[in-house]
Amino acid sequence: MEPGAIITSKRNERIRAAKRLQQRKIRDQRGMFCLEGVRVVEEALGTPFVETIFFAERLTETARGKALLALAKHQGVPSFHCSDDVLAELTDTVQSQGVVAVVNKPSWPRAMDGVTLIADEVQDPGNMGTLLRTAVGAGCRGLYVVEGSVDLYNPKVLRSSMGAIFYLPHWLVTRKEILELVQESNTALVIADLVDSENFWAVSYPRNLAVVIGNEARGVHPDFRKHAALRVKIPLVGPVESLNAPVAAGVLLYEILRQHRCNHPGSVL
Amino acid sequence: MEPGAIITSKRNERIRAAKRLQQRKIRDQRGMFCLEGVRVVEEALGTPFVETIFFAERLTETARGKALLALAKHQGVPSFHCSDDVLAELTDTVQSQGVVAVVNKPSWPRAMDGVTLIADEVQDPGNMGTLLRTAVGAGCRGLYVVEGSVDLYNPKVLRSSMGAIFYLPHWLVTRKEILELVQESNTALVIADLVDSENFWAVSYPRNLAVVIGNEARGVHPDFRKHAALRVKIPLVGPVESLNAPVAAGVLLYEILRQHRCNHPGSVL
Repeated sequence: MEPGAIITSKRNERIRAAKRLQQRKIRDQRGMFCLEGVRVVEEALGTPFVETIFFAERLTETARGKALLALAKHQGVPSFHCSDDVLAELTDTVQSQGVVAVVNKPSWPRAMDGVTLIADEVQDPGNMGTLLRTAVGAGCRGLYVVEGSVDLYNPKVLRSSMGAIFYLPHWLVTRKEILELVQESNTALVIADLVDSENFWAVSYPRNLAVVIGNEARGVHPDFRKHAALRVKIPLVGPVESLNAPVAAGVLLYEILRQHRCNHPGSVL
Repeated sequence: MEPGAIITSKRNERIRAAKRLQQRKIRDQRGMFCLEGVRVVEEALGTPFVETIFFAERLTETARGKALLALAKHQGVPSFHCSDDVLAELTDTVQSQGVVAVVNKPSWPRAMDGVTLIADEVQDPGNMGTLLRTAVGAGCRGLYVVEGSVDLYNPKVLRSSMGAIFYLPHWLVTRKEILELVQESNTALVIADLVDSENFWAVSYPRNLAVVIGNEARGVHPDFRKHAALRVKIPLVGPVESLNAPVAAGVLLYEILRQHRCNHPGSVL
């Protein structure tokens, strides 16, 4: 392509390759995904993972959009000007902000230390994204995603996570793998359960622990139940059957943070 | 209509009247709304508010669906059999469970006592529904919705609230009204704010308080900021700008519950 040229064909090779990333299978194979929106692409440019940027005319009409393109150029990330209908091929939202980035999945060495979160067959993309955001806020060191959960790189998850995907080390594991890792690393498995459990504030949380967030309908899997070191209850005062998964995670993770901070006031988590 | 007759016309008067309830203006005028799904309609039948039920053939194919219709009959709630395409006129979900109820809005005398929640221009229906559910779980006595927020009777709010709408007294108010009520009732206004605030666990919460949850983008309104008795911070350990609104509400409300329970162990909230 010549400099300044605009991609106007949906059959352009780069566009077709990026569009294929809408399928989870292709994201898994290629280890890449698409991100859309000015804010998250800005966040992504703060990492070494961005491969390519596609943008529409309207991005260049704002100061923030221009700054984003300047930053990409400065970092040597190629950016391609597309017609609106071509960019629309790559976006998931109705009102796109005119920018899509193709990004390499970040990766981290596996570690289990401090407070980690285990998402066990969490299905709803909004819940998964909010879990990520909550975990970063509460100072979690990592997120283990058990197979059968929604893909972390699903566009809806990315949207709800508000950029947290780059800040929270995460790994896809089988239930067996994570249970082995828990055992090897001497980590206390914490599950939320309404029966045979103590109020979450009445429990003393060790430094190394992993909180399990179960499937929205079925709750915590029996394998985790069996190996739980701590079974805690978030009491439901009024007549609801359960809390929303990220809300439950937030309540537990912040009680853990409260205890860790109050018991070790000088510590930096 | 004859007994056993099936409504097959979208222009049926009852169907058209129910369909109009998809507009907020009409819901406000008539003081009624539509609920869909087996579980929430069951919940609704536990209250005196259900006016009419519309159902499709597939509801009658499950034991639970039959039980629902039997319960409606027992309570003298008329139910109308509709063809699938007629029922689809009234549903908001793609995969409807074949049942819609027309329900009168519940109402309660205004009161401010114990722990209440103020939703100030909360825009996202999913967030509002999850707030309702969280507030019921944490034992809130009521929810004040400030004008400019999403309608509590919006189908998406109802879906996320999981039936909590019937258990949490709620009122639509102006910001001026709620500020007057807070003052008259000697209620402490609690706001979450990252600046000029103490960690939420380091504050002692009085029995009568109202927690303000602000707009997703703009946060807490200056009027609430000005009148706040307690300004608390939910610390963000990792690099996220904020927590999701219902997660923040859950963290605060459960810390309040924890303190109230731990300081008055015998109390029933």
